[in-house]
Amino acid sequence: MNVSQKLISSHLLDGTMEPGQEIALKIDQTLTQDATGTMVMLELEAMQLDRVKTEVSVQYVDHNLLQADFRNADDHIFLRTAAQRFGLWYSRAGNGVSHPVHMERFGIPGKSLAGSDSHTPAAGSLGMLALGAGGLDVAFAMAGEPLYLKMPTILGVKLTGSLPDWVSAKDVVLEMLRRYDVKGCRGMIIEYYGPGLDDLSAMDRHVIANMGTELGATTTVFPSDGETRRFLRSQEREGDWLEILADEGASYDQEDAIDLSALVPLIARPSSPGDVVTVREVEGLEIAQAVVGSSANPGIRDFWIVGEILDGKTVHPSVSLDINPTSRQVIQNLIDTDSFFNLFRAGARFHQAGCMGCIGMGQAPATGKISLRTVPRNFPGRSGTLDDQVYLCSPETAAASALTGKITDPRDLETLYGFTYQRYQRPEKEIINTEMLLPPLPPEEQVELYKGPNIKTFPRFGKLPTGAEVPVLLKMGNNISTDEIMKAGVKVLSLRSNIPEISRWAFAVLDETFYDRALQAREAYGGHVVVAAENYAQGSSREHAAIAPRYLGQIAVLAISYARLGWQNLVNFGIVPFEFVNPEDYASIEAGDLIRLEHVAANLENNRPQMAQNVNKGLQYELTHHLSDRQVNVVLAGGVINYFRMPAEDPETSGTTSES
Amino acid sequence: MNVSQKLISSHLLDGTMEPGQEIALKIDQTLTQDATGTMVMLELEAMQLDRVKTEVSVQYVDHNLLQADFRNADDHIFLRTAAQRFGLWYSRAGNGVSHPVHMERFGIPGKSLAGSDSHTPAAGSLGMLALGAGGLDVAFAMAGEPLYLKMPTILGVKLTGSLPDWVSAKDVVLEMLRRYDVKGCRGMIIEYYGPGLDDLSAMDRHVIANMGTELGATTTVFPSDGETRRFLRSQEREGDWLEILADEGASYDQEDAIDLSALVPLIARPSSPGDVVTVREVEGLEIAQAVVGSSANPGIRDFWIVGEILDGKTVHPSVSLDINPTSRQVIQNLIDTDSFFNLFRAGARFHQAGCMGCIGMGQAPATGKISLRTVPRNFPGRSGTLDDQVYLCSPETAAASALTGKITDPRDLETLYGFTYQRYQRPEKEIINTEMLLPPLPPEEQVELYKGPNIKTFPRFGKLPTGAEVPVLLKMGNNISTDEIMKAGVKVLSLRSNIPEISRWAFAVLDETFYDRALQAREAYGGHVVVAAENYAQGSSREHAAIAPRYLGQIAVLAISYARLGWQNLVNFGIVPFEFVNPEDYASIEAGDLIRLEHVAANLENNRPQMAQNVNKGLQYELTHHLSDRQVNVVLAGGVINYFRMPAEDPETSGTTSES
Repeated sequence: MNVSQKLISSHLLDGTMEPGQEIALKIDQTLTQDATGTMVMLELEAMQLDRVKTEVSVQYVDHNLLQADFRNADDHIFLRTAAQRFGLWYSRAGNGVSHPVHMERFGIPGKSLAGSDSHTPAAGSLGMLALGAGGLDVAFAMAGEPLYLKMPTILGVKLTGSLPDWVSAKDVVLEMLRRYDVKGCRGMIIEYYGPGLDDLSAMDRHVIANMGTELGATTTVFPSDGETRRFLRSQEREGDWLEILADEGASYDQEDAIDLSALVPLIARPSSPGDVVTVREVEGLEIAQAVVGSSANPGIRDFWIVGEILDGKTVHPSVSLDINPTSRQVIQNLIDTDSFFNLFRAGARFHQAGCMGCIGMGQAPATGKISLRTVPRNFPGRSGTLDDQVYLCSPETAAASALTGKITDPRDLETLYGFTYQRYQRPEKEIINTEMLLPPLPPEEQVELYKGPNIKTFPRFGKLPTGAEVPVLLKMGNNISTDEIMKAGVKVLSLRSNIPEISRWAFAVLDETFYDRALQAREAYGGHVVVAAENYAQGSSREHAAIAPRYLGQIAVLAISYARLGWQNLVNFGIVPFEFVNPEDYASIEAGDLIRLEHVAANLENNRPQMAQNVNKGLQYELTHHLSDRQVNVVLAGGVINYFRMPAEDPETSGTTSES
Repeated sequence: MNVSQKLISSHLLDGTMEPGQEIALKIDQTLTQDATGTMVMLELEAMQLDRVKTEVSVQYVDHNLLQADFRNADDHIFLRTAAQRFGLWYSRAGNGVSHPVHMERFGIPGKSLAGSDSHTPAAGSLGMLALGAGGLDVAFAMAGEPLYLKMPTILGVKLTGSLPDWVSAKDVVLEMLRRYDVKGCRGMIIEYYGPGLDDLSAMDRHVIANMGTELGATTTVFPSDGETRRFLRSQEREGDWLEILADEGASYDQEDAIDLSALVPLIARPSSPGDVVTVREVEGLEIAQAVVGSSANPGIRDFWIVGEILDGKTVHPSVSLDINPTSRQVIQNLIDTDSFFNLFRAGARFHQAGCMGCIGMGQAPATGKISLRTVPRNFPGRSGTLDDQVYLCSPETAAASALTGKITDPRDLETLYGFTYQRYQRPEKEIINTEMLLPPLPPEEQVELYKGPNIKTFPRFGKLPTGAEVPVLLKMGNNISTDEIMKAGVKVLSLRSNIPEISRWAFAVLDETFYDRALQAREAYGGHVVVAAENYAQGSSREHAAIAPRYLGQIAVLAISYARLGWQNLVNFGIVPFEFVNPEDYASIEAGDLIRLEHVAANLENNRPQMAQNVNKGLQYELTHHLSDRQVNVVLAGGVINYFRMPAEDPETSGTTSES
């Protein structure tokens, strides 16, 4: 077996390891960050979970550290009390970026990790099976439930040779992006192996595993070898080491190879991580900013090399060099090597330890100006500037360019400044800092959740009603996206922990009167339905596109077809995703029509077809669905949260909602 | 003479040194920061100034460093090009807080300094005459014009004794605030003298001079003595030292005294710097945040002592300790003393060198939670949280409380932790950092102003029309504030460098149709007037409350009376502030009435009364004004900017505006 197969088979609870088949995996560890974590904690509360059932669960605060108003600071207190309430570790605001901190303090070869952040696969650098997932999936993993996914194919990438001077791990993953672009590895686990691994430290492997997400991969896996052991020893955790290597003669579903010694400095152009060219091809363009940091270049080395390059020099007058240190542990080690001093002296702007500009929390570049960044993504506008010009590159390329004021191949530093490339000596022991990691409290200590005015308890939903006669509040066309169902943007995003408030925005993009009409229908009829054509709820995985309509009393959607994720979210939150058996029925139904659905619960339970009477038109429609038996039970319970706590409680039989 | 009198007399260009009399002062240096500087630079451009005429002018970037969108980064580039265009020093974003950086690098005993920031008096710590002023006043000082103010009274405060352990400079100025509250020193210069000065380092004096602003003082002055010399020597600028002491037997208009040895740790309660009590009186209240930094506690010592207190300990789990280091020079010196390492290890969150949370740029406290801060102000909501609970205190009190999680008298650290108070050894030589200070370019180097899409050239206004027949667009009541004339808040504030755009908000609080109607009136009649009752344009000194109406074609205001600052701004931007000779005339005039003003220019020029015909009502009003001869010329020219460049150019004679 290869390493990926070993990791999966040792966590397989259900299914077979055939590519494309659904498998259920046991999850040992979870990771949540602040942007997704508040909703996860509210879901744990709604599930009435007493204490997480994982070996280790950690709540990080790294995404939003700016505290522009009370909500951010309130979120931090809420997350701390939630971590204490449910038995999680809590990494305090400014302690550092989740992925590298998790790797340093908690990562254990051979364990599985589910995280509500798309870069969770970074922990694959230690020989872990690390998977990004939606918030509710991670909440369920915390509750001891399995994580479901389709068995990926395994892409084996053999690394040979060693990296030339001025070329580093970021260039390796940029080479992968040059080959596969941003969708080329969908449905795959990328497994690196071969003699070239000797040249890559554990943190270098983190760089590569982290950005596997940009390739579309399910995750990335490295073996756990001697370097993994050295890394864990440097973290004073050698006891956690376990060797995990591919078996002699192991094979892969698909094969590729990279000769490290043939690589040159690479760069991804605006505005896709997949638009990769050599630095040479774009050299000379003037830059206004260089940003170093993020989970895509988090190692001490990644900052140290910038300090070495800038030692005794000054950042170019037209360039802002912004440094987002990974963690306070990394900072202490940088202070120890004098890099920190060098960087300050040279004019770098240091920010808090966290994601910062990587996810557009500050550091927005100037209009039309080029920003070079060591971060994983350069999607349009992600930097906070709408027409941004963000390039992705290695710390070496960022530092060289910050010095000259234009995109510069770092190899030219030799002739420009007589600089000899330095290689970082991997330490046998790092300075360790655990001061800002609050351990889980003993179960007997009771902590109350602190909820600021913008954090509201997850609403309690009732069971599916036995039958209904409710109005069609909206008739929509094809390809309605979750952005139309629930508006994107900062203003609405900041309400993500406040279902009553965010529900005001449900369908508002399509119809500003929706909210008021839904409240009236909830009062008068006990709920409503909406009608759509093909591919309903496409786009992002935004759960609020199901939660908010549900809060407003939505019982069912009547559509011709659904997008996969949106369909799953409807089920998870107890809205029945009905489909027209005869798609032409869609034409005869109108907003305002009253729809009678009789014996809904019984029909679902007994797998009988569902008829819908259009009371206004005197018409009758035949409806169907594609729910599994488990999903039928979920919908009957009123959603997956009720389903989870069903044995313990029997919520009111009603389509309406109540806040508790 | 006392020190204040020596400083004033050596800069006196006009007037006599009698309290209350207007005096004109020669200005040697200026200081602008980014929040006010963009408009100052646009004014310099509009004045067609080629190069500043001061000895030293410095543009700092310290207020807004968050870069939430393109505008902030655009502002930074604009300020850099403007500094290069007009011959200023440029302190790059993140180099540090203006007042302490200015003191370290540019302050010279005996010189005068005007700054577009209310804490400019901090430089009084070096024996300078340092005055805060409006942006346009500072622009004029840069152009070599005098600064006008009323001769203050001098309050002499004799310091005796020496500070007890755990009591520091902040407690001295808090004691002053306890005695005088926030208005008690209006119209005064506070001059400190006496043997107690030996106990206060130059940076300690900065703390006291800086917060003189909170007492309402015009400025604060310290002598330039041996300590001043040591400070300048530590900055490698001993050659700039000049002894300035009060003459033997010098007297003061008013006298007070503080025995330093009798002081105890003090704290200002929410939400006024003047609500001062002893720390003992409020000890035990739980806190959620402690913020250390700002121009009110900027010295190396102020951070060092926090590092000493936290050495080997950890910030309380419920407290966020936010540190805003003063400057990169301070950071380098802190790294050198290991304080920086201690603070990071203990869990402090370090932010960029700048004002940050002091002016509500991030670090907003959680709802209803107490935040202890070493900053100068705790006005309601200034922190970014509407119902904030901000207390002001010394670094000692902040550190002790961050450790225990509740407001703690730092003297208790002796019994709580066995801590012995340490005194910082003032260094003979600091590490100096000038890397991020760009010197003025040689005059022959041409630099073009870079203006992002949100920065618009200051509009060119025409001369006052000879006569006008224009509509009354708005009739207002008593005490109309500048907040009603020009809305406050982040959204509108961000348009401060964009007159065409911000003008959309003129009077919008009172009447949303104003903007459209003003454009119509400008088109149809060449302008408009507005009518108000008593005390028009009270409140803040916001210049945009005059600039925006002027941009929309406002020729005159007809009011019963005016607030002083608002009246001055109207004159500065070329709007005639007429007053009703018979206040009862106010009653008969209505919005929509057409007002005919004949021979306005000639009447003003020849000091003749002005008649106004109400064309609609067939009534006639007699108007007067209180302009000085100089102000008449300003209004005739179309505002002070035109007046300044009059000899060089003769703008169109018209009440309308044109963008160039």
